[in-house]
This record gives sequence, structure tokens and C-alpha cells, in this order.
Amino acid sequence: MEFPSKLIENAVGELAKLPGIGRKTALRLTLHLLKSETEATSALAEALAKMRFEITYCQTCHNISDTEECSICANKLRDHSLVCVVSDIRDVIAIENTGQYQGVYHVLGGVISPIEGIGPSDLHIDTLLTRIPESEIKEIILAISPTMEGDTTAFFLSRKLREFPDVHISTIARGIPMGGELEYADEITLGRSIVERTRQVK
Amino acid sequence: MEFPSKLIENAVGELAKLPGIGRKTALRLTLHLLKSETEATSALAEALAKMRFEITYCQTCHNISDTEECSICANKLRDHSLVCVVSDIRDVIAIENTGQYQGVYHVLGGVISPIEGIGPSDLHIDTLLTRIPESEIKEIILAISPTMEGDTTAFFLSRKLREFPDVHISTIARGIPMGGELEYADEITLGRSIVERTRQVK
Ligand SMILES: [Zn+2]
Ligand SMILES: [Zn+2]
Repeated sequence: MEFPSKLIENAVGELAKLPGIGRKTALRLTLHLLKSETEATSALAEALAKMRFEITYCQTCHNISDTEECSICANKLRDHSLVCVVSDIRDVIAIENTGQYQGVYHVLGGVISPIEGIGPSDLHIDTLLTRIPESEIKEIILAISPTMEGDTTAFFLSRKLREFPDVHISTIARGIPMGGELEYADEITLGRSIVERTRQVK
Repeated sequence: MEFPSKLIENAVGELAKLPGIGRKTALRLTLHLLKSETEATSALAEALAKMRFEITYCQTCHNISDTEECSICANKLRDHSLVCVVSDIRDVIAIENTGQYQGVYHVLGGVISPIEGIGPSDLHIDTLLTRIPESEIKEIILAISPTMEGDTTAFFLSRKLREFPDVHISTIARGIPMGGELEYADEITLGRSIVERTRQVK
């Protein structure tokens, strides 16, 4: 596809780098912005840049947060002895949207993946282990997508967590289809799998 | 859907204003940018803002152009006596991609639509009429999507063009499905409909 303007070409090229956006869609989006008020484009550009450059993470759970402590960790009404371990903040958003969970979270920031060169030290595992004695944690729910990498990560964590014999370890209940990504699960299934989590035998 | 950060919420909100992008997709795109290098986001934000604020249009054909005269109008090898009238620059790009057309263009900037309050004076019709005697135009191809508004616009133009009895008027050939949008046509159908255009009886 050739474009009559380098400006259009650059905009289309940058948009088409986003996942799931082809060049034809990118062109539609570009021409949509071109037809809209200039304010629409500046609002979009500024929101993206501000988000990327000013984002910070919760120092306790590594969830995204505009403050040092995220709103979930700061909420005294939540059960801080119950920690749900997820790989990604998308999972936090998905579980929060079920309205079924009252504990707190720990975001690993990925899963162990030898192919992508992601090892345990690249994940927020150390901070989870130091957090357990500090915060009097009683139960850890492993809510990691049941993919191969996810299972490897859960297995690794289970082993590590053996050094805390008083902490119960559970995994979210069956209900998530095998090989399925957590974030695609509907809210009822996901909510149920949290409530009916199965306690893991150590 | 609730977000743990206003920055994320704003980015998702702005992306979700784009046509065909829902909030779930917007969140995926936002988190993708968050995981990528900061440069990816600044390149995207800058490309969009630059495109929107610096874009200019060809003074002859109203195509998008980085210069006063677009690359098509400036090309001496093209047939300047043959003008293809389209509603939108998307149509220019689509026809150019067929590689079947060697004339020049005239971009109306829309179609007559009483419902949307777009009348003939809102389109680049005057400049088309002044262009005809100035540029020794011999044929005008009406390549407007065969929708109700498109047909109204083509009909209006045909009437206006009666004042130039020496200029042939043609419409792109059947092949574009009725009610179909030009830009969605595949390249072969669209290319063929240009080559086999039917001359209109005045
Ligand atoms: Zn937190
Ligand atoms: Zn031009």
C-alpha cells in the first residue's frame, strides 16, 4: 500500500505495529483522526505518552498504580492475609471485575519461559517470599493461566513456598479450560474458580 | 471495567474512541505499549500528532500531500486530461493500489448527505468546475461508491458537468456490488471497474 504523504505513512506504520492492527485498519484509524477535530488526536497522543512515561507500580504487589501503594493494597477492608498470585495486571483487572475476591494480589510480571529467556529471577518472586512473613499471610492462591509456562511457574512457586509450612497454598478451581488464557474467561467462570479454589497438597 | 490507574483509564478511554476498538481491545493495546520500550509509545504518539497537525492537501486535487502539489498531480507521465472524481482519499489509495489507472484525481471530501447536513457547497465541486477549462480535461470518471448518497452526488455532478459538452463523463464499471463501499472492493474488481468504465449518456 502506498500513501500520498509521509505523515500518513508514519502514522499508519506506527499504528500497524500494535498487536492485531493491520495496515488497512491502521489507515482507517488514521483517516478517522484526520476527519475528527485536532483535539481528538492530541488527547489520544498525550494520554498514551503520559501513560507510558508516568506509570508507576505498587511497591508491595507490583500492580499498576498512580501512587506508591495501589488502591487494593491500601484498602483496609480487604483481607491482607490472602494473596492471589497472578502473572499479569490484566489478570488483576479480570479478577477484580468478577467482584468475587476480597484478598490482595501479587503480580509476577510474567511466567517462566525458557524459550523467551524468562527465568524465575526475572519475575517478582523474591518480593513475594519476603512479603509472606512480613504481612502474616495465611493463604496464597496461585491464579496462573494453565498453559505450559503457567504450570511451570506454579510448580516452581509451590516448591519455593514449602519453606512456609503454615501458609496454605491453593490454585484456582477447574473451570478455566485447559490451555486457556485466564483473561479470556467469562466473569462467572473466573469468579467461581476463585471461590471454589482447590487447596494444594504440599 | 475498572482500572488501577487513571493513566491507564485515560489511555484506554482515548483508544476506545477509535472506530472498531472496544474497551477490551484498548486495554490490550495499552498493556502492550506498557510492556514495550518507552520509545514505541513516543514514536506512536508523535507520529499521530505530527500527522494530524502538519497534514496539508494538494491545491489542485485535494488529495493529502506533504507539498503544495501532490505527487500524482506533479507527475508529468500521468494523463492530466483524465480526472477520476472520488469522495475520499481512501479511494485514491485504493485505486492507486490497483496499478490500473494513469490519470489524475479530484477528491470531493465527502458525498452529499442531507441527513448529515452535507450539501454540494461543502464538497470540492467548485474547484473541479474551474479545473476543467484550465487543465484541458477531456474525460471525467465518476468513481463514487454506489450508495444512496454516492448516487445523489454523482447525479448532481453529471448535471453540473453538462456545461462542458466536450468533456466525456464516465462512471466506473459495474463490478462493485450495489450498496458496496468502494474501499472494500478487492483490487482486481476495482481495477477492472476502472478499465471497463461505462461512458455516461448526457
Ligand atoms: Zn498493591
Ligand atoms: Zn494533487
